[in-house]
Amino acid sequence: MRKEKEKIKIIPLGGLNEIGKNLTAIEYKNDIVVIDCGLSFPDDEMLGIDLVIPDITYLQKNIDKVKGIFLTHGHEDHIGALPYVLKEMNVPVYGTKLTLGIIQTKLKEHNLLSVVELKCVKPKDIVKLDNVSVEFIRTSHSIADSVAIAIHTPIGVILHTGDFKIDYTPIDGCVADLARFAELGKRGVLVMLADSTNVERPGYTMSESTVGETFARIFTNAKGRIIVATFASNIHRIQQIITESIKYNRKVAVSGRSMENIMEVAMELGYIDANKDVFINIDSINKYPNNRITIITTGSQGEPMSALSRMASSEHKKVNIIPGDRVIISASAIPGNEKLISKVINQLFKKGADVIYEALADVHVSGHACQEELKLMHTLVKPKFFMPVHGEYRHLKQHAELAVKLGLPSSNVVIADNGDVIEVTRDSIRKNGTVISGQVFVDGLGVGDVGNIVLRDRKHLSQDGILTVVVTIEKESGSVIAGPDIISRGFVYVRESEDLMEEARELVKDALKKCEEKHITEWASIKSNIKEVLRVFLYERTRRKPMILPIIMEI
Amino acid sequence: MRKEKEKIKIIPLGGLNEIGKNLTAIEYKNDIVVIDCGLSFPDDEMLGIDLVIPDITYLQKNIDKVKGIFLTHGHEDHIGALPYVLKEMNVPVYGTKLTLGIIQTKLKEHNLLSVVELKCVKPKDIVKLDNVSVEFIRTSHSIADSVAIAIHTPIGVILHTGDFKIDYTPIDGCVADLARFAELGKRGVLVMLADSTNVERPGYTMSESTVGETFARIFTNAKGRIIVATFASNIHRIQQIITESIKYNRKVAVSGRSMENIMEVAMELGYIDANKDVFINIDSINKYPNNRITIITTGSQGEPMSALSRMASSEHKKVNIIPGDRVIISASAIPGNEKLISKVINQLFKKGADVIYEALADVHVSGHACQEELKLMHTLVKPKFFMPVHGEYRHLKQHAELAVKLGLPSSNVVIADNGDVIEVTRDSIRKNGTVISGQVFVDGLGVGDVGNIVLRDRKHLSQDGILTVVVTIEKESGSVIAGPDIISRGFVYVRESEDLMEEARELVKDALKKCEEKHITEWASIKSNIKEVLRVFLYERTRRKPMILPIIMEI
Repeated sequence: MRKEKEKIKIIPLGGLNEIGKNLTAIEYKNDIVVIDCGLSFPDDEMLGIDLVIPDITYLQKNIDKVKGIFLTHGHEDHIGALPYVLKEMNVPVYGTKLTLGIIQTKLKEHNLLSVVELKCVKPKDIVKLDNVSVEFIRTSHSIADSVAIAIHTPIGVILHTGDFKIDYTPIDGCVADLARFAELGKRGVLVMLADSTNVERPGYTMSESTVGETFARIFTNAKGRIIVATFASNIHRIQQIITESIKYNRKVAVSGRSMENIMEVAMELGYIDANKDVFINIDSINKYPNNRITIITTGSQGEPMSALSRMASSEHKKVNIIPGDRVIISASAIPGNEKLISKVINQLFKKGADVIYEALADVHVSGHACQEELKLMHTLVKPKFFMPVHGEYRHLKQHAELAVKLGLPSSNVVIADNGDVIEVTRDSIRKNGTVISGQVFVDGLGVGDVGNIVLRDRKHLSQDGILTVVVTIEKESGSVIAGPDIISRGFVYVRESEDLMEEARELVKDALKKCEEKHITEWASIKSNIKEVLRVFLYERTRRKPMILPIIMEI
Repeated sequence: MRKEKEKIKIIPLGGLNEIGKNLTAIEYKNDIVVIDCGLSFPDDEMLGIDLVIPDITYLQKNIDKVKGIFLTHGHEDHIGALPYVLKEMNVPVYGTKLTLGIIQTKLKEHNLLSVVELKCVKPKDIVKLDNVSVEFIRTSHSIADSVAIAIHTPIGVILHTGDFKIDYTPIDGCVADLARFAELGKRGVLVMLADSTNVERPGYTMSESTVGETFARIFTNAKGRIIVATFASNIHRIQQIITESIKYNRKVAVSGRSMENIMEVAMELGYIDANKDVFINIDSINKYPNNRITIITTGSQGEPMSALSRMASSEHKKVNIIPGDRVIISASAIPGNEKLISKVINQLFKKGADVIYEALADVHVSGHACQEELKLMHTLVKPKFFMPVHGEYRHLKQHAELAVKLGLPSSNVVIADNGDVIEVTRDSIRKNGTVISGQVFVDGLGVGDVGNIVLRDRKHLSQDGILTVVVTIEKESGSVIAGPDIISRGFVYVRESEDLMEEARELVKDALKKCEEKHITEWASIKSNIKEVLRVFLYERTRRKPMILPIIMEI
């Protein structure tokens, strides 16, 4: 019996077989430690969906055990689901200063700030829970204040690297705490969960400071305004832009809501090293010569409503792109955004801007470890068991192979899926069952009210539109009193297709007449008759399959 | 008056500010030479659209002058619009043997083969028209039998490079005819139109034969089946796969309709160097040991219905992926397809296949010239005027800059748009007016019957679905006899939202009652009342904006 209890459960509820909505529960006795609480963005099939968050049914069912949500850093795929999850499950949230600063803005928007307990931690801090303690360890990533999390349990240490890279020359001088990883490794780590994002890339991710060197070159000979689009949360990137601006006596203005929000937080918390007088309001940019202006903006992914996109399409109220502007897109495309970014680049070039992007200069580095950095982490930590996280299957698989190449027996490596329950003892690791997990769609104010049927309908509607057929029938006689009327949307140009629609109407009339003759009075039968006759006719004539929606009214 | 006539008009109707639907008209006196006739694939905004073809109104209006369509090679973005254009405008089509071979399959499908005049040409051939002659010059590209086209006119030569790269070791041994480009350059080329696709890439595109070297390594130690997905039209890639298969005593099976079609054409025309007994039917693959089988397939872009995607998702009738299969995706992602490809890679890995793709090995090279190759072409041809083609604006712009860096005055370079009329004389080039141009959408059997209104409706429907409100009103009294009924699709789960829908129904009832009280009888007014009350209510309650379609029936 005793042995039965000596188990740790690792239950990923998001972040596996996907890059996004990271959320992992680590359970030991009556402690559940939740690591991260992220969202993901909808893919092309999720029409109309705003956000996707993890299904937390398992946590809700075990709410008594959940001791808190422990955050590794402030990126959306690690914190974005918090407002939704905290509404269902109000537990303390632990994070470093900047991470909590970023969250506060979000919680305020959701009227949650006053009800949620935020606990600020520093690297090296240890939070003691009933049976386990949670330690934060400094790492480097494309956002400041990122940490790995080590959970110390009586049967061993579970180490979650969070998102990381190894940067020996980070902008804030705070190198990852390699010594602590080594120390943990020496004492023995039972399981390591590690970032797999860049496992396909050989070598090392370059230091963030190399981007500064590129900026230095780009700023040197710039004669007009410099406009830099980057990820709002990349404080170190922003610091480097500001540093160069100061060097060349440029004032810095900020555009884009998320950039403004994060800049405010970062300034307030002391993450930006610059005098306040460096900054000017975006309204004031025209008071200075062009070569005295830097604009830092959102929109590095070409997002249609972002500040940079609006500048590029002349819809920005404050910034008009003019010949001589130098626009730097300091980011790489997140898969799926390539065409959006390309559109913005084309528009900027057309306006006469000088556009500099990843294909042309080293204006971006990744925040994730490449193969050699992963090998370093594995070698320092020397875990007994390994579970790759933060990746699609291809990444998890290749990260598993990397671990095996470094000497780990393949039986000590587990490639898991969201919802799997991974049971770990002192000397074993295995999948044992699953819990409810999945995607919860956020659409407007609705959380979870749009599911696969609705999405299937949206997909159908998006492809060939809809034909609504309305007919009013007299209850007693079953004879048609009004209609059939056919109204279409998203199917064909109605004006050009009047004949087609008239033919369709006649066919429906015939179908209704036949139903009447055959004394078919059940609505379901009449509707399916209408549907079938139209489906066949329209497909034959157009090779399209619009949604057909027959509506019968009875009086 | 005489001088007035001494003009060449270059009229691009597709291919500028886009990569796709290439079609350029070169007009001199009563000759119009049409170069290429391609399609493009719909972007994300073109919901439900199958293909996009160029608007050829200008050619139809000047049909008497159109002497033929002259093809540079057999890729879809250069030939794909032919079946649609030839239905509107039956003119001779000139192309090299393989190009015409590929077209024939298409024309057969459209029942056009017997009515269209196909004229087979070879590199160095010259076709004489009334006032100009058209010369074909061998180039290299990612499809065999590609050519550049030189149009000799009394006032000078117009050279269109087509899509090209410089490959000194091409698979068929036929190097681009650099000597002829040099000769033309020496005699004087008035205008060059050149491929801009890879202008952002420094250096050289590697030779197709380097992919063969990678294949050689991959085949050497393969113990199971080898499955290679590539572009069906890349005959040289396919030849290299076959060559390695023969070396390792593997039989070759083909899967995927376009691959089967092109293989048939290529074999028949002698473009594949292999005995017939190398090939087996896909039905027979299980009769051989796994390490004696190679499968060549479509689906390198992750296209959902392609053979490789079906294999990956266990929907392929003939091929089941098994552990030990080695799958090579011999292509790079066309922008927009990244996520589709990634999905297939993940599925293949999950089935235990060993997947090799561009991130992991050099299994693909581009078919387009990088910067150093472009410089070579410019240096050989030394055109008086230059017009970059085959690219988005960013590419055209940078290609223009490249030409200027090589010494061309910037006033001799024209960046044009589709529909521009570029007038060239012996010593001038300028834009002078525009003609009708644009995108014609093909959706099912409809060509041009889906336009922006329909697309806007599809977009709207795709985001938040539709609510149909039906009500039957008595004509004379204006009072409601049946309904209002509300039916939604793609909006919310109806079952979970019964209350919401009931509230909506009550609101519509009230609105109708008010209309009746106020003696509002015009349908338009009643409808807009219904729309408005629902719009406000639904947005407030859900933050969604479904399409609202009120239908009034009168009896």
